[in-house]
Amino acid sequence: MPRVSGSSAFLDACAGKPVDHTPVWFMRQAGRSLPEYRRVREGVGMLEACLRTDLIVEITTQPVRRHGVDAAILFSDIVLPLRALGVDLDIVAGVGPVVAEPVRSAADVRRLPEWEPSAVGAVTDAVRELAGSLPVPLIGFAGAPFTVASYLIEGGPSRDHARTKALMHADENAWHELMRRLAEISGGFLRAQVEAGAAAVQLFDSWAGALSPRDYRRFVLPHTITALQSADVARIHFGVGTGELLADMAADPVDVLGVDFRVPLSEAAARIPRSMPLQGNLDPAFLFAPWPVLQAAVDEVIADARGLPGHIFNLGHGVLPDTDPDQLTRVVEHVHVTTRR
Amino acid sequence: MPRVSGSSAFLDACAGKPVDHTPVWFMRQAGRSLPEYRRVREGVGMLEACLRTDLIVEITTQPVRRHGVDAAILFSDIVLPLRALGVDLDIVAGVGPVVAEPVRSAADVRRLPEWEPSAVGAVTDAVRELAGSLPVPLIGFAGAPFTVASYLIEGGPSRDHARTKALMHADENAWHELMRRLAEISGGFLRAQVEAGAAAVQLFDSWAGALSPRDYRRFVLPHTITALQSADVARIHFGVGTGELLADMAADPVDVLGVDFRVPLSEAAARIPRSMPLQGNLDPAFLFAPWPVLQAAVDEVIADARGLPGHIFNLGHGVLPDTDPDQLTRVVEHVHVTTRR
Repeated sequence: MPRVSGSSAFLDACAGKPVDHTPVWFMRQAGRSLPEYRRVREGVGMLEACLRTDLIVEITTQPVRRHGVDAAILFSDIVLPLRALGVDLDIVAGVGPVVAEPVRSAADVRRLPEWEPSAVGAVTDAVRELAGSLPVPLIGFAGAPFTVASYLIEGGPSRDHARTKALMHADENAWHELMRRLAEISGGFLRAQVEAGAAAVQLFDSWAGALSPRDYRRFVLPHTITALQSADVARIHFGVGTGELLADMAADPVDVLGVDFRVPLSEAAARIPRSMPLQGNLDPAFLFAPWPVLQAAVDEVIADARGLPGHIFNLGHGVLPDTDPDQLTRVVEHVHVTTRR
Repeated sequence: MPRVSGSSAFLDACAGKPVDHTPVWFMRQAGRSLPEYRRVREGVGMLEACLRTDLIVEITTQPVRRHGVDAAILFSDIVLPLRALGVDLDIVAGVGPVVAEPVRSAADVRRLPEWEPSAVGAVTDAVRELAGSLPVPLIGFAGAPFTVASYLIEGGPSRDHARTKALMHADENAWHELMRRLAEISGGFLRAQVEAGAAAVQLFDSWAGALSPRDYRRFVLPHTITALQSADVARIHFGVGTGELLADMAADPVDVLGVDFRVPLSEAAARIPRSMPLQGNLDPAFLFAPWPVLQAAVDEVIADARGLPGHIFNLGHGVLPDTDPDQLTRVVEHVHVTTRR
C-alpha cells in the first residue's frame, strides 16, 4: 500500500495544531459503498465479521487503500461489545440491531453482563495489527451509552425512543444504573482499543438528537463523559440532529466535536462554550449529485470551516450504502488539493 | 357537547392578543390514542376515512369532546390531496404512505395532476359541518411541498431522503417545477378548507429537518411561502428537527411558529428574526411518565414560554399511538388551571 503523505495531519488537526492540508475521513467509509467490502462480507453476518480479526483488518484498511483518507476507523458496530459479552442480539439486514430480550426494568438491568476485555480479544488483535500496518492513524470506535441503551430498551431501532424515555422518566434509579453499566462497557471497549494502538477514538451517540437539552444533560451526558474518560487519546464526540446539544456535547474531555450536516460549522463553533476543532459536515446526499454540485458543496464546507481552531473534513452523517465510491475518492483529492498550505 | 369556556383563546393567542388562559391542542389528537377513534376506523382504510365526510366530522370532533382542547385539527393526511387527485398511493399500516410510481424525473413531474378543488368535496363538506358545530376553532391541515415531494420521490417514508436530495441537486429545474405544482396543491387544499370555514391552518413540513439551512432556503422555503399565502387566516408552520431552520420557517406570512421538543421555546424565540407567538413543545414521550414527572415537564414548558408574545400549548411532535388518553386530558386541565389569568 502506498504511504499516504501527511499521514499525521489528522492527529495534528485533532490537537488544534497547524496542518499542511485539511485531513479527511468519512463516517462509514468501511462499509457497503465499497465493492471490495461487499465481496469479503459475502455469507458473513455483520456481527460475525466484527469479531473476525482478519475481516476487521481487511475492511478497516479498504477505504484507506482506495480513497487515501487521512484516518482509518475501526470496522465495528455500536452493539458489538454487548454481543461479545453474551447479550442475545443480532443485526438484521434492512432493520438494524434486534435484541432478543429487551431491557425494561431494574431487574433486567441487573442481569446485564459486566465489562470483560477478553470478550473482544479478536478486536484488540485486529487493532494491534492495524496500528502496525496502516499508513494513517486508526480511530477506535464505540457507541455512546444512550444509543446502546435505546437499542437495548426498544429491542431495535426506534423513531421516537418512547420506551427508552419512559424508563428514564419513570424509574430514574434503574435508568442511571443502566447507563452506569453501559458507560463501563463503552468506556472499556474504547480503552481496550487504545491500549492495543488506536491513536484516537470516536464515540457515536447516534440517537442523542432525540432528546431535549434538559433530558440530555440530566440523564445522558454524565455517563457519556465517564465513557470518554476511559480513552486517553484524541476524543471525537458525534451525534445526529444534535444542534441543540452541541454546547453540552463539547464538554471536557472531548477534543473534537463532530457536527452533523444540519448545523453549519461556523454556527456550531458559535454555539459551543470553548474553542475546539470541529469535524464534518457534508450532507452525504451530495455524493449522489453531479461533480460540479458536489464540489461546490465541499468547497462550502471548507469555506465555512475557515477560522476554526482545526477542521477534520468528514460527512455530516455516514456514507449511504448506494454511494459511488469514486465520488468519495474525488472528495478526498479535492479537499487535499484545495486546502494544501 | 359542553361548550368549552374561553373557546377563542386559541385564535387570540395566534394573533398575539391577551388570553385568559393558555390554549391547548395536540398534534395527532384526532387519532389512534383514542379508543373511540379505533372503533370508528375499524375496517376503514386511512385514506378512505379521510375522504368520508361523516368520519372526518366524527374523528375531528372526538378529541374536543373528550379532552376539552381549545382547537380542533382536521382529521386528514399529508398525502390525501394527491390521492384525491388520482395519484396511485396508499397508507400501509406500520409503514406509512407508499406511492405506486415514484416521481424520479422531469417527465414524471409533468405527469402529476393539477389542483382541482372538487376532488376534495368530501373534505370541504366536513369542514363546513365542523365549522358550524364545533365549540372551538377548526385548524385546517396540509403537508408542506417538501414533505409531500419526499414521499412522492422516495416512494414512501425515508430516513435519509437521498433520492429527494439527488433530484434537488441534479436537476434544479425539475425540482422547482415539482415544488411549484405541490405548492399549488397544498395551497389549494388549505384555501378550500379556509373557504369552507377553517379558522386557522397548520402547514406540516414533517421532513424539513432533513435539510441543511442552505438547501432549505434555496429549494424549499419559496414554495412553502406560496402554499401558505393561499390561506388568509392564522397560519401555523411546523416541522420536526428544525432547530436550524426556525429563522427561515418564521418568514412572512407565518403567524405562529410550531417548535419541536428539541428546542426550548425561549431559545426558539431568540433564534427567529421577528417576534411571534410560538406553539409547542412538550416531548410526547413524557405522556408515558407518571403524573408528577409529566406535570413537572408541562410546567417547565409553561415557564419557558413566559414572556413570549403568545403561547399555544402543544406537543413538540404528534401524540404517540400507545398514549393513554387520560394523560392528555389531565394535561389540558393542568394547563388551563395553571395559566388562568
